[in-house]
Amino acid sequence: MNDNLIDIPNYLDHLRRLDQRMFRRDFLLTWHKTDRELEAVITLAEILRALYRSNISCRVFETGLAVSFFRDKSTRTRLAYASACDLIGLTVQEMEEEKSQISHGETVRETANMISFLSEVIGIRDDLFLGRGHRFMSEVADALTGGFEEGVLNHRPAVINLQCDLDHPTQTLSDLFHLRKYFGGLENLRGKKLAMSWAYSPSYGKPLSVPQGIIALMSRYGMEITLAHPPGYELVEDIIKLTGENSERSGGSFSVTDDMKKAFQEADVVYPKSWAPARVAAQRTELAGKNDVQGLKELEKEALAENAKYKNWLCDEKLMKSTRNGEALYLHCLPADVQGLNCAQGEVTMGVFDKYRIETYREARYKAFVIAAMIVLCRFRDPARLIERIFRDRNHRAG
Amino acid sequence: MNDNLIDIPNYLDHLRRLDQRMFRRDFLLTWHKTDRELEAVITLAEILRALYRSNISCRVFETGLAVSFFRDKSTRTRLAYASACDLIGLTVQEMEEEKSQISHGETVRETANMISFLSEVIGIRDDLFLGRGHRFMSEVADALTGGFEEGVLNHRPAVINLQCDLDHPTQTLSDLFHLRKYFGGLENLRGKKLAMSWAYSPSYGKPLSVPQGIIALMSRYGMEITLAHPPGYELVEDIIKLTGENSERSGGSFSVTDDMKKAFQEADVVYPKSWAPARVAAQRTELAGKNDVQGLKELEKEALAENAKYKNWLCDEKLMKSTRNGEALYLHCLPADVQGLNCAQGEVTMGVFDKYRIETYREARYKAFVIAAMIVLCRFRDPARLIERIFRDRNHRAG
Amino acid sequence: MNDNLIDIPNYLDHLRRLDQRMFRRDFLLTWHKTDRELEAVITLAEILRALYRSNISCRVFETGLAVSFFRDKSTRTRLAYASACDLIGLTVQEMEEEKSQISHGETVRETANMISFLSEVIGIRDDLFLGRGHRFMSEVADALTGGFEEGVLNHRPAVINLQCDLDHPTQTLSDLFHLRKYFGGLENLRGKKLAMSWAYSPSYGKPLSVPQGIIALMSRYGMEITLAHPPGYELVEDIIKLTGENSERSGGSFSVTDDMKKAFQEADVVYPKSWAPARVAAQRTELAGKNDVQGLKELEKEALAENAKYKNWLCDEKLMKSTRNGEALYLHCLPADVQGLNCAQGEVTMGVFDKYRIETYREARYKAFVIAAMIVLCRFRDPARLIERIFRDRNHRAG
Repeated sequence: MNDNLIDIPNYLDHLRRLDQRMFRRDFLLTWHKTDRELEAVITLAEILRALYRSNISCRVFETGLAVSFFRDKSTRTRLAYASACDLIGLTVQEMEEEKSQISHGETVRETANMISFLSEVIGIRDDLFLGRGHRFMSEVADALTGGFEEGVLNHRPAVINLQCDLDHPTQTLSDLFHLRKYFGGLENLRGKKLAMSWAYSPSYGKPLSVPQGIIALMSRYGMEITLAHPPGYELVEDIIKLTGENSERSGGSFSVTDDMKKAFQEADVVYPKSWAPARVAAQRTELAGKNDVQGLKELEKEALAENAKYKNWLCDEKLMKSTRNGEALYLHCLPADVQGLNCAQGEVTMGVFDKYRIETYREARYKAFVIAAMIVLCRFRDPARLIERIFRDRNHRAG
Repeated sequence: MNDNLIDIPNYLDHLRRLDQRMFRRDFLLTWHKTDRELEAVITLAEILRALYRSNISCRVFETGLAVSFFRDKSTRTRLAYASACDLIGLTVQEMEEEKSQISHGETVRETANMISFLSEVIGIRDDLFLGRGHRFMSEVADALTGGFEEGVLNHRPAVINLQCDLDHPTQTLSDLFHLRKYFGGLENLRGKKLAMSWAYSPSYGKPLSVPQGIIALMSRYGMEITLAHPPGYELVEDIIKLTGENSERSGGSFSVTDDMKKAFQEADVVYPKSWAPARVAAQRTELAGKNDVQGLKELEKEALAENAKYKNWLCDEKLMKSTRNGEALYLHCLPADVQGLNCAQGEVTMGVFDKYRIETYREARYKAFVIAAMIVLCRFRDPARLIERIFRDRNHRAG
Repeated sequence: MNDNLIDIPNYLDHLRRLDQRMFRRDFLLTWHKTDRELEAVITLAEILRALYRSNISCRVFETGLAVSFFRDKSTRTRLAYASACDLIGLTVQEMEEEKSQISHGETVRETANMISFLSEVIGIRDDLFLGRGHRFMSEVADALTGGFEEGVLNHRPAVINLQCDLDHPTQTLSDLFHLRKYFGGLENLRGKKLAMSWAYSPSYGKPLSVPQGIIALMSRYGMEITLAHPPGYELVEDIIKLTGENSERSGGSFSVTDDMKKAFQEADVVYPKSWAPARVAAQRTELAGKNDVQGLKELEKEALAENAKYKNWLCDEKLMKSTRNGEALYLHCLPADVQGLNCAQGEVTMGVFDKYRIETYREARYKAFVIAAMIVLCRFRDPARLIERIFRDRNHRAG
C-alpha cells in the first residue's frame, strides 16, 4: 500500500472538474448524493490530508461554531468530528440533552434555529432507534432551510450525519477511501468481491447503519457484493432494493445469503460485523417510546438468546483461508468484538484481528479528513479556489 | 423591519463619543450601568453583527480563555456565550461543579483566582435561588479585583452575568436591541406602551430575572410600562422602586396591576411570561440550603396549586386584539410554554405564538453580539480604535 | 520577591545551550528527565510567561488537538492544561470514560491510536489507584510509539502526566519555579532546608504523588530535605531510595522522621499536606478492582480512624515560629484543608494560611506555563528557534 503524498495541483484540477452542488446543503445519506459529489468528498479529503501531512494549515475559518449533538456514546466519531472542525478552524460546541433545555418541550425547529446563529455545521449522531435518526436530522435540516429563508439565520449551516439509523456516511466513505488506497484507485474496485457479513456479538442491538451504508455505497463501484446474515437479521428493505439497483447500474452484482462461508468464498474484502435484526430494532424504538423498561429487558433477553444461536458466525483463520489467496482485506469500523481479547465469543478471532490490526487503524484515520471535506463542500461555493489559495499560501500548521 | 447592514464608520464615530468606563469592570446588572454604557453595548453589538454579516473576522484575541460556569440548564445562553467568545477569538472552558473541586470546600476567592490566570472573562449563570446568584457573582468579581491588585493576576478578567436571581442583562439587552430595530431607534421607544405580564405555566419556580430586568431596563427609555401579575407574584421590591425612579427620570410611566387584560389594552409591546412568586423563590432557597427534600416537594405542590388558580392568564388571540391595532409586538425569551404545542395549558396560544414565531427568533439572534460587545468593552481600554483596525484590515472570517 | 519581566533574549540563549532531547517524547516522571531537560522546561516556561505578560502571542499551532483524559476531579490542573493548550494554539478535547466507548472493551492501544490522528498531546490525570496511573500512561505512550512507527500516525503526540500515582510533575515544577523566583535562582536552593510533612485532614486517601514528586525533585538541587510522617504513612520505597541518591549526588541531604516539629525546626520551606498510607492506597486499588463496595467502606472507616490519631499534625503559628526566623515559606498545591475555613480540623490554621495565601496563589500561577513549555519541548525539534521567531514577530495576543 502506497501512502506517499499525492500531487495536490492534480487533485485540485480534478476537484474543479467535479461540478458538485453541495453548497448550502447537508450530508445525510450517501444515496442522496451523485457519484461526482461522493468523488468530490474523497478527492478533497485526500487534498486536506496531504496538506496536513505537509504541515500546511487548512484553516479556512477564522471563527465559527460547529455544534455537535451525540445521542449515543462515541469515541472515534467524536474525535474525528473534533479533529475535522479544528483542522478547518471551527470550534466545537457539544450539545447535551440533559444540560440543555431541549428536553423541556422545545420544538426541533426552535432548537435548530437557536443553535445556529453563528454556526457553520451541526453534526448529529442519532443511531439508536430505527425510524428516528434520519427523520430527526431531516427535521433539523428543514428547520435550518426555513430559518435561512425567513431571514432569521445569516447563512445556512450544514447538517452532517455522524451516524443515523439508516446510514453512517463518514464511516463508509472512510472505508471507501481505505479501499481506494489499498487497491490503488476507485476503478480497481470493479469486480472485486465484498462480503458484508453478520457476525456474532455478545451484545444485541448494534445499529444497522454500517452494513446498510456499506452495501449501498460499495454497490456503486461495480463490486460483487454478498450480504450474509442469519434468518431474521434482515436489513431495511428499501436499502436492499437500492443496493440491487446500484449494482445493476454499476455493472456489479448483489446477492443475499444466510451462509457466512459462502459469502467469504474467494472474497477480496470481508466486513464481518454484528447488527440487530430490524424487527428487534423497530420493537425497541416502540418500547423506548413508551418508556417500557420491563418490555425492553424482555426484548434484550429474547434478542440475546436469538443471537446465541449463531455463535458460529465468527471470522476465524479457517474462514479467512477460503478468501482470495487466503488474503482478503478485513474491514471493521471498530471497536470489534475480538474473541479472547474483550469477549469470550465474538465477531473475530484474535489471530485474524491481529493480522489486520494496523490496516483497521489505517481505515479509521481517514474519517476526520472525510468530515472536513464534507463541511468545506457544503459551506463554500467554490472549494477548489479556496483550497488553491491555502496551498499557495503554505502557512505552517505547526511551528 | 429593516435589517440592512448599518453604516459601520458612522457607528464607530458614535461609539467613540460614548465615553464609557467599562474597562477592567464587569457586567452584572443593567442598573449599575450608565445610559451611555448601555448604548455603547448596543452600538458595539450592532457593529460586530455588521462585521460578521460582511464576513469580516472580529477576532481581537489570538489566544485566551473564557470560563463559563452554569449552575442551571441552558441552551440558548450557553450557545450565545460560546458564539460570542468564539467570535472574538476566546476559547470557552466550562466549569462544572461536579467535575471540579469547587464543592470540596474551596473558597470562592481561591477558585476565582485559580481559574483566571489566563482568562479574559468569567461568564456565570446562577439564577435558581433568590438572594444568591448576584451575591455569588459579586464575590467572584471582588476576588478578581483582589487578585489583580495583589499582583496574582496579570490582568483583571470581566465577570459577565449570564442570568442571576435579579437580572438577565444579556437577554434584556437583546430584547432592547430587537425593539430598537423594530421601532427604528431607541428614541422611538418613548411613549410606547409595554405590558410585562405574568402568564400561566405548568411549571413553577421560573426565575424572576427576566421580568425584573425588563421593567428596570425599558423604564429608562420613556416607555409606559404596566407590570401585571396575580396577587402573590410580586417582584423584588427594590427593583419595583428602581423602575419607578427610572420612569420618572425618563419621562415614561410605570404601574402595577393584577389585571392582565388591562395591561394589554392598547399595548405596543407585550411580554407574557411565567415566574415564581418571590416568596416561593425565597422559601425554596431556604429549603434547598437545608437540603430539605420533603419540604421542597411540598412547596412545589403548593406552588403549582396556586399557579393553577390563574390558568386564565393566557396570551390568546382575543387579548392580542385589544392591543394597539391588534398588532402589539409579542416578546419572549424562549422557550415559551405554548398551549397545545409543548403543554396542555400555557403562557400563549399556538396561534399567537405562530404569528410572532419569526420575530421571537430574531429577538434571540442578537444575544451573542451583545455578549461579545460586553466582553470587548470590559477588556479593552479603547474598543473603538481596536474595532476600527479590524474594519480597516477586513480579514475574512470564512474563506 | 521580584516579578519583573525577564530578559527574553538572554533566556533564549540559555535555552539554546541546554541540549535537551525531549522531541517526540513524553513528560511522565521528573526522574526520567535530566537536569538540563528540567531546566529547559523552567526556562521555556519563564519565556512563555514573559511573552504572555508582554501581550505577545505564543501561538505556535494554527490547528491541532490536545486530548485530555481526567480520571479524577480537577479544577486547577484542568484549567492549567486548558490555558496552556490555548496559549500555544491547541484545542482541548476532553475524553470522558462514560461518554466514550473506552469502557466497552477497547484496548488501550486501540484507543490511544484512535484519539491521536490529529492530536499533538494527550494529557492524563490518573492518580487514584496506586500502581495504576503511571502504568496506564506508559501503555498509552508505548501505543503511540507503536502507531507512529507502524505509519498509522502522522506524528508522535506527547503524553503529559497531569498527576499519576507516583508523581505530579506539572505541580512540582510549578513549585520549583516558585522557589526559584522566591529565592532568586535555582542555585540559591542549595543548603535550604525543606520540610515535606504529612498533616492531618478529615479526608483519607489523598494521592502520594505530591510528596513523592516534591522530595524526588527538590533533592536534585542540594536542598536539605526532611520528610515527616506518622508511622504507617510511608511513601513508595523506590522513591525514597531515589531521593537519597539525588541528595547525595547534589550535595544536599535527606532524612525521614516521625516528628513534624523536628522537620519544621529551622526550615526555610515547609510543605504540610495530607496523604494516604501507601498500604491503604494499595488496598484500595485491590478492592476497587474487585468492585468491593463494602470493603471500600470499611477501609475508609479504618483509615479515617487511623488518621484521627494524628490530629496534632497541624501547621500552626507555633510550629511556624520554630522555622528559620519564624518566616519559612509555606507551600501547598491547593486546595488546603484550612482549619475553621473549610473543615473543623485540618492541615493548617487560618492564621498561617492567610499569611501565605497570596504566595500560594503565586505558586499556582506558573502551572499553565510549565505545561505549555513541556508540550513545546516535546513537539518541536528546535524550540529555541521557534520561540525566537515568535519574539521577533511580536504579534499581539489581545487587541
